[in-house]
Amino acid sequence: MRSRMQHLWALAVVPLLAAGLVACQGGGEGGAEKSKKAAPSGSLKQIMQERGLKEADVRAALQTYTPSGGRDEYFMFASGGHSGQVIVIGVPSMRILKYIAVFTPEPWQGYGFDDQTKKLLADGDPPNGGKLTWADTHHPALSETDGDYDGQYLFINDKANARVAVIDLKDFVTTQIVRSNLIRSDHGGTFVTPNTEYVVEGPQYPAPLGGEYADISEYNDKYRGAAIFWKFDREKGRIDKAASWAVELPPYMQDLSDMGKKDSYGWAFFNSFNTERATGGNLEGKPSLESGASQNDMDYLHIFNWKKAEEVVKAGKTKKIAGMRVIPLDTAIEEGLLYFVGEPKSPHGVDVTPDGKELVISGKLDTHTTVYSFAKLMKLIEDKNFQGKDPYGVPILPFKESIRGQAQIGLGPLHTQFDDKGFAYTSLFIESKVARWSLKDLKVLDKIPVQYNVGHISVTGGDTVNPGGKYLMAMNKWAIDRFDPVGPLLPQNFQLIDISDPEQLRLIYDLPIPLGEPHYAQMIPVSRIKAINVYPPGEDVTTKQTSPFKTISGQERIERKPDGVHVYMTEVRSHITPDTIRVKEGDTVHLHIDNVEQAHDATHGFSIDTYNINASLEPGEHVDVTFVADKPGVFPMYCTEFCSALHLEMAGYLLVEPKGASKETKL
Amino acid sequence: MRSRMQHLWALAVVPLLAAGLVACQGGGEGGAEKSKKAAPSGSLKQIMQERGLKEADVRAALQTYTPSGGRDEYFMFASGGHSGQVIVIGVPSMRILKYIAVFTPEPWQGYGFDDQTKKLLADGDPPNGGKLTWADTHHPALSETDGDYDGQYLFINDKANARVAVIDLKDFVTTQIVRSNLIRSDHGGTFVTPNTEYVVEGPQYPAPLGGEYADISEYNDKYRGAAIFWKFDREKGRIDKAASWAVELPPYMQDLSDMGKKDSYGWAFFNSFNTERATGGNLEGKPSLESGASQNDMDYLHIFNWKKAEEVVKAGKTKKIAGMRVIPLDTAIEEGLLYFVGEPKSPHGVDVTPDGKELVISGKLDTHTTVYSFAKLMKLIEDKNFQGKDPYGVPILPFKESIRGQAQIGLGPLHTQFDDKGFAYTSLFIESKVARWSLKDLKVLDKIPVQYNVGHISVTGGDTVNPGGKYLMAMNKWAIDRFDPVGPLLPQNFQLIDISDPEQLRLIYDLPIPLGEPHYAQMIPVSRIKAINVYPPGEDVTTKQTSPFKTISGQERIERKPDGVHVYMTEVRSHITPDTIRVKEGDTVHLHIDNVEQAHDATHGFSIDTYNINASLEPGEHVDVTFVADKPGVFPMYCTEFCSALHLEMAGYLLVEPKGASKETKL
Repeated sequence: MRSRMQHLWALAVVPLLAAGLVACQGGGEGGAEKSKKAAPSGSLKQIMQERGLKEADVRAALQTYTPSGGRDEYFMFASGGHSGQVIVIGVPSMRILKYIAVFTPEPWQGYGFDDQTKKLLADGDPPNGGKLTWADTHHPALSETDGDYDGQYLFINDKANARVAVIDLKDFVTTQIVRSNLIRSDHGGTFVTPNTEYVVEGPQYPAPLGGEYADISEYNDKYRGAAIFWKFDREKGRIDKAASWAVELPPYMQDLSDMGKKDSYGWAFFNSFNTERATGGNLEGKPSLESGASQNDMDYLHIFNWKKAEEVVKAGKTKKIAGMRVIPLDTAIEEGLLYFVGEPKSPHGVDVTPDGKELVISGKLDTHTTVYSFAKLMKLIEDKNFQGKDPYGVPILPFKESIRGQAQIGLGPLHTQFDDKGFAYTSLFIESKVARWSLKDLKVLDKIPVQYNVGHISVTGGDTVNPGGKYLMAMNKWAIDRFDPVGPLLPQNFQLIDISDPEQLRLIYDLPIPLGEPHYAQMIPVSRIKAINVYPPGEDVTTKQTSPFKTISGQERIERKPDGVHVYMTEVRSHITPDTIRVKEGDTVHLHIDNVEQAHDATHGFSIDTYNINASLEPGEHVDVTFVADKPGVFPMYCTEFCSALHLEMAGYLLVEPKGASKETKL
Repeated sequence: MRSRMQHLWALAVVPLLAAGLVACQGGGEGGAEKSKKAAPSGSLKQIMQERGLKEADVRAALQTYTPSGGRDEYFMFASGGHSGQVIVIGVPSMRILKYIAVFTPEPWQGYGFDDQTKKLLADGDPPNGGKLTWADTHHPALSETDGDYDGQYLFINDKANARVAVIDLKDFVTTQIVRSNLIRSDHGGTFVTPNTEYVVEGPQYPAPLGGEYADISEYNDKYRGAAIFWKFDREKGRIDKAASWAVELPPYMQDLSDMGKKDSYGWAFFNSFNTERATGGNLEGKPSLESGASQNDMDYLHIFNWKKAEEVVKAGKTKKIAGMRVIPLDTAIEEGLLYFVGEPKSPHGVDVTPDGKELVISGKLDTHTTVYSFAKLMKLIEDKNFQGKDPYGVPILPFKESIRGQAQIGLGPLHTQFDDKGFAYTSLFIESKVARWSLKDLKVLDKIPVQYNVGHISVTGGDTVNPGGKYLMAMNKWAIDRFDPVGPLLPQNFQLIDISDPEQLRLIYDLPIPLGEPHYAQMIPVSRIKAINVYPPGEDVTTKQTSPFKTISGQERIERKPDGVHVYMTEVRSHITPDTIRVKEGDTVHLHIDNVEQAHDATHGFSIDTYNINASLEPGEHVDVTFVADKPGVFPMYCTEFCSALHLEMAGYLLVEPKGASKETKL
């Protein structure tokens, strides 16, 4: 079919272009004359020639190019990998609209520089001291209502330090970071239950729960996994730590997760690898983990009844570890919360179909993708039809009786998404392709090469009850030769694939990611997100409350109080008030700053040299900046956002009088 | 002329598109049949209809769309504003290829996390304590040979803290940060002399030189500006601090700068505003700076003979301030190094023409742009034809005798660039336009609206002796309604303008900048930069030397030494060796890590939770990570770059045995 379509395309388009019929504005003054041989200067044909564009490129260009002031159809929210941020991309223009600061301090946004965001970040720091200034963000999860994205919130995990962040999509700002010391790393997070009752954080590398020490030789006995169910309070827009709980899991390496929906509502699914419980030790004569963890033909899909677990938690059948209510593994087994079923070799993704009736799992060392029937799983559980137990006593369901079938899919299958036509799409890491296959008859219909080594893929709404059918994003881990060379560290490569044609997949755009190593992404219609343009005056954007230190124009003042010097400041085009701040060496200084603008895009910055002071204030925003003026001298302060023609004049001085200076402080 | 061209375009293209002649792959199985009314499904015409594309958009799409694996013509290096980074953009595809970490710690690049880059950043910290974790980058400067970009190095300033960074374009990595405590902020930097003899850093907000304290009431007497001439050693790729020097300037607010070239080689030009010496004090009954600094009709262009100044420095006619040799203002005047000439009101840019014969200056509160003749300036100096002196004794050249003329250009002119056709381009901030004007007869030929409030502009090579004529980038400070809403903090908006047609300027692409508030940018042909793909084994990328701790496969080991535990490690797909590290609580741990890969794009990360350890190792790279293991417990470590199908298995454990634990440490 594809070759016929390509032929038709060539028949229809090539002659037109070749004839120079699309010429216009030919060579300067002469106007539009038809060329005979060379395409006329400035014609579309000439542009194509000069730029080496083929016919398919013209189509792709028109499908993605978004003219000045134009709008995108979808927002894509991609994790920023170990940049610790979230990336917002417009689709199909493939323009990056924003990096949202989440776990890493980011000065453009003033994030991690003012008192508000310093506190927010500190909430994610380890309880035993130390400060985290990065994260390895993996899986963004949009909040859902009835299994579909509702556009209100976004959640994201930090694999490296087992944290979860909440981003408010009213203003695209991080408002909360939570961490439990229960686990040390997470990978099966974040995933939300279909009404965002919970934000689920599954672990990755087992360790003694709660931060205890045990030598690696005690791995089987003392190392554990645990999945945390963070209770989300939608009204408050915050995770309620006290209402959250966890379940202890065996020391396998739990991996990607998905939540049941519709028919499978109330259940959660966690993949795992290294059911071999290999621990490495390659300098001690043992095999590396990559080898030790790849011995078994099957690992375990964890099938967990979170709805029933809620009752178990309510009944108090938990123990407290690191302040978290944890359902012990034994209890989870006794109460019938946890079951296993074999899944072919070192699986990565477990993906629930849009109707909630099936699960698709791909083993990255297997050439199949396997489709499990939720009804069959439930029937096996109901009938207690188990094929033994794992070493920790978890009942194992028989594999063959659990599945509907397998698709012979290719090398290195990782992750599956769905569309609105009954197709499934699976990334093939080793093959560097994306496969389209029929969910109905488990047949591969098409494969499209991607460049290179694709990890996750994302279809618009492709993990919800209501997937779209227009775009698929391939998130490729290696770029190699795809872009002009920028040194040894290369951008990753997102490729946009047009999936609207049931007959053919078409690659239509390559997007380098200039910062970060994204892992997963979700795409939501732009229309579903209602972002504000300005804040109400005096807004603390991390709490969405009016600051008690809100200052309006005319009320600016400097007050010396027992806890230090309080400066109530405003910014408005084009001055800072007060523009002279006099303090004494050693003073604790509290700056309370309001951007009193209410005009869209009238952001002001605020900076003071040497003291590492830097704030970004969107219209209406209030921030506080507290510091000890321990260095005497003269320090310019100024607005860092080019806000008006007199922006450079929006400046003043902090004067820190040295100790022992004779003059009276002029407060 | 423009309307006629548009007419011709419409004549040539619209009928073709309207007739559906460009149809292809019409509605499914039917093939390419000509539509009668609605455009056939999947045709170019239908795509245009659906996406609201006009005829000019098709042309722009083809001019910018770059198909999979395609190459860009130019690299654009843009400052990242107060993100503290540098942004690399491919032109004309307008894809952002990389954020280069410069002044702000950035975990994706491991920048500011390993010992090497921590030291590099610390070199820019204030001498009197404190740590800087951001910057306000303003003006990138590519290294030059004979006044043209040579593609070897890039320099960038930090306005907020008066620092300068060196980026090596072999690998797009920051290799040096320098800071003098002489000045507190810089804006007239970085600019290079035509053979990169010096990287010039001009100040902005005056303060007592060297960090002394003086009340603002002593502004006229004790506050000063100073321009620093950082000596660049091209062989070493480093600024030679000991060979660098500065010149004291009056307490005006020196602004943008440019270096003379060709005819004007040896001279430097600094703009200034606030020659009123207003100091604000708006809470003390005085006018804000925006008002106080806007009283005079003229400010002063600073004309400085740096070539002659070198001799004065050599002759020892300097004083040491903050460790820097400074030519006192009196000496600069006596030696004939410094002259002023009036420049209309609150100028921003001073831009030397490609032939070096003229200077273009725009006063942002004036509606003209003014063209100064370098020959006239020299003649006036030679003839000592002065119109008095400023309060500090600097001779002032007569304005009218200095200029060739003025162009009536519009509202809020800021910055001028040049092309290869004798045109100049000036940004108009208040008017939100870019004006094209003839350098020959000072007539405005065209203006193109931009969205909105344009600051700097950049033409390919537009500030060199050899400008191009194809692209101009407008760097707009406000975006407002240009993109889908992402909350109150908006991306800035870069707009690519096709300047190849002498008859018409055409806007062809809008690029949102997702992180940072860029100020200035330079564009260089991609072909002129020779980036490497991998490092030689054991490379310390900040020094470009082989690390003394380089470790190769098979030589991994753990050694306990008097200064702590040394771990010699390697990373290669897909294991870390050693993958088990046992230390005791309180140990100082030195990780020496080599990525022993030599394959292009085979980057590995390295992370340990809780300890905030995070490294990025490009193929061949070596890093050291030193930390105190003060928190007992079990800490997973893993590779953070998705490097192979067994990437998740590329992991191990750091085991920190608690103090007083009975077992022997198993080293």
